Amino acid sequence: MVHIFTHSPSVIQQYVAEIRDKEIQKDRMRFRRNIERMGELVAYEISKHLSYEFREVETPLGTANCQILKNDVVLGTILRAGLPLHHGMLNIFDKADNAIVSAYRKHTSELSFEIQIEYMSAPSLDGKTLILCDPMLATGMSMVAAHKALVSHYGTPSHLHVVSVIASEQGLEYTRHHLPQDTRYWIVALDPEMNAKSYIVPGIGDAGDLCYGEKM
Amino acid sequence: MVHIFTHSPSVIQQYVAEIRDKEIQKDRMRFRRNIERMGELVAYEISKHLSYEFREVETPLGTANCQILKNDVVLGTILRAGLPLHHGMLNIFDKADNAIVSAYRKHTSELSFEIQIEYMSAPSLDGKTLILCDPMLATGMSMVAAHKALVSHYGTPSHLHVVSVIASEQGLEYTRHHLPQDTRYWIVALDPEMNAKSYIVPGIGDAGDLCYGEKM
Amino acid sequence: MVHIFTHSPSVIQQYVAEIRDKEIQKDRMRFRRNIERMGELVAYEISKHLSYEFREVETPLGTANCQILKNDVVLGTILRAGLPLHHGMLNIFDKADNAIVSAYRKHTSELSFEIQIEYMSAPSLDGKTLILCDPMLATGMSMVAAHKALVSHYGTPSHLHVVSVIASEQGLEYTRHHLPQDTRYWIVALDPEMNAKSYIVPGIGDAGDLCYGEKM
Amino acid sequence: MVHIFTHSPSVIQQYVAEIRDKEIQKDRMRFRRNIERMGELVAYEISKHLSYEFREVETPLGTANCQILKNDVVLGTILRAGLPLHHGMLNIFDKADNAIVSAYRKHTSELSFEIQIEYMSAPSLDGKTLILCDPMLATGMSMVAAHKALVSHYGTPSHLHVVSVIASEQGLEYTRHHLPQDTRYWIVALDPEMNAKSYIVPGIGDAGDLCYGEKM
Repeated sequence: MVHIFTHSPSVIQQYVAEIRDKEIQKDRMRFRRNIERMGELVAYEISKHLSYEFREVETPLGTANCQILKNDVVLGTILRAGLPLHHGMLNIFDKADNAIVSAYRKHTSELSFEIQIEYMSAPSLDGKTLILCDPMLATGMSMVAAHKALVSHYGTPSHLHVVSVIASEQGLEYTRHHLPQDTRYWIVALDPEMNAKSYIVPGIGDAGDLCYGEKM
Repeated sequence: MVHIFTHSPSVIQQYVAEIRDKEIQKDRMRFRRNIERMGELVAYEISKHLSYEFREVETPLGTANCQILKNDVVLGTILRAGLPLHHGMLNIFDKADNAIVSAYRKHTSELSFEIQIEYMSAPSLDGKTLILCDPMLATGMSMVAAHKALVSHYGTPSHLHVVSVIASEQGLEYTRHHLPQDTRYWIVALDPEMNAKSYIVPGIGDAGDLCYGEKM
Repeated sequence: MVHIFTHSPSVIQQYVAEIRDKEIQKDRMRFRRNIERMGELVAYEISKHLSYEFREVETPLGTANCQILKNDVVLGTILRAGLPLHHGMLNIFDKADNAIVSAYRKHTSELSFEIQIEYMSAPSLDGKTLILCDPMLATGMSMVAAHKALVSHYGTPSHLHVVSVIASEQGLEYTRHHLPQDTRYWIVALDPEMNAKSYIVPGIGDAGDLCYGEKM
Repeated sequence: MVHIFTHSPSVIQQYVAEIRDKEIQKDRMRFRRNIERMGELVAYEISKHLSYEFREVETPLGTANCQILKNDVVLGTILRAGLPLHHGMLNIFDKADNAIVSAYRKHTSELSFEIQIEYMSAPSLDGKTLILCDPMLATGMSMVAAHKALVSHYGTPSHLHVVSVIASEQGLEYTRHHLPQDTRYWIVALDPEMNAKSYIVPGIGDAGDLCYGEKM
């Protein structure tokens, strides 16, 4: 299942317009806030597909039959650009466990690179619902590498959701080819191309730099 | 159209369970935060029914065809309990105009009252999309009185959305009878009854007190 | 005691520059956020003058002697412009009780007005620490009228703190003349003048409009 | 210079009591929020020691002489426990650049370990004001290793601020011995001891686990 948010109307369209706009991008606080809000709203859409159980709750005036989230959600994020997206998801799933992975493009030449996984921290993932997020799905190689590293160290989730703000068509295809078949994809906007440096076009530029400033 | 959020699964179910629970209610910060999160998620669902227009946006790497919210939204709130709900909606519609109304139950005896409108502040509402929110729709009289006062002073919205966290069946029926026919209702949870003091049962108690402390 | 924040260096200076700037003011989200941040930081400065009591707390690894806020704080706000400032203070004092007052300038001619108090909601104020906030202290008449109305209905606080973002010298003088002598004033920036319409100069314009949009 | 926040009264005392309390710790949202609030208030105190420059700002009603932060702040954080603290600081310094480092205790036996630095991402630090934060300063070895790694790769800051929520006396001493002499230390609470596993006593337990859940 692939859900593309910009294929239907919602306020997320407005946020996408703002994070793409190179003038509005100069306001880092708004840029991060827009990514965070997308994380919140995507998390909410995902929550419609999770499991709940009934519980009787005592109110000051009576008893109500309520539904509680079965708390097996693990929010996974790829550093550093994934942090505001992860933060938004944590605003919605405030009791969730968390997995953090660092992945970066180690260049072997100006235009080619491989993905390096360094830092990893996660709970056991066996039988859990893993929501793995990275704002940019360009080649898709980081997402696939992060998933592979997590599964080989921490076990196999029962459900996998992949979240991305901007994905390239090629990156989405690559990811779908390498991740389990029943993975659900939550893509805010799907862009047609990548340039020679594997940046998504028209895209937004470098999400990490826009959130946190340029790296040396 | 009436949309009841607890009729389908989502994380909102969890928040409803928490605001109803008389133990969890003791944490006012979490109570307000839950109401605020509901405001955010309801605002997002409403946004799926608003109008957008295309705009070309220049990214650092190209040009993208985006959709911008036609900014005619007015967020209306009924004091004081409506403030955290309104705050959540403003987190989503950050450019919206705002209307604020105070309504309170002026008791004519222990068990009967009329609604008193005092403070009002709003822009022109003519042709706007008005989203009017109050966490509790008990008798529905406050909502109807607030709407009437707003329209008679500030003009007639082209679209009206009514938002409530907990509504009684009777209150919803009363409101639907008195507000324009094409009004859309966004009710988080619908409760069957009211007690003799016109509090919703099982409900949550007094939303204003739970957010801000008891009044003298 | 009068504390003027812009008389000494801190990041609040930056926020003041932003809320004054008529270009940056166009971003309502940032405007409200700046007022909210000032509310947080002023609340923190006030908290240095409150009372605490010792309590033993059990940590996972031992026992710690901690200090707990003696929780008698009431956060009072004047509508509607006071809401983001109040919201910031509530972010810091999350357990506080709250008092809400509406005050507006009822014009008797183009250039003269009296202050009308309408909506009021508050707990008993007897012996409490009341922090009363309004972003603009222009003539000072709203603050004095709000204080008078609150005290006559809800009792006399033991400590009074008055918070304002921009105060005119005349407004501060008027307020000091009419409020109890031991009141503490927390003024972010003090401006020299008012214009004929009693707006502070250079000031920021109308704080309510900048937060919430123009009123009809 | 060493500033210990719990040596003087402020609302931070309340937050410290809450993060220490093993019952209140069960609410991860409140735990993270308390760390975040400390990040905000510590950032504000640090901001009193930064440099500002004058700028004329046009308001809607005149011209104001304002002070702008000289924007050379880099917020550095040590993963993963540092993230909520970093998030709070970024709420205050919203335009800051950021440095992220992962450090973990690589155990060579049950009770001994060395610090492993893996992921690093930072701008040039030459001549910048680096604020380096980690909620726990236990042995101090992570902080010293992170500083060393950052400086050797990214250059030498002109000013260094070290921020920690809970520090052990030994950890603070170790850090002061190894970092530049003019470093300023902002310690929320200073605890007397560490146990055999180098956890601070009474402390709070494992800050990362309390924020994000246990690691496998």
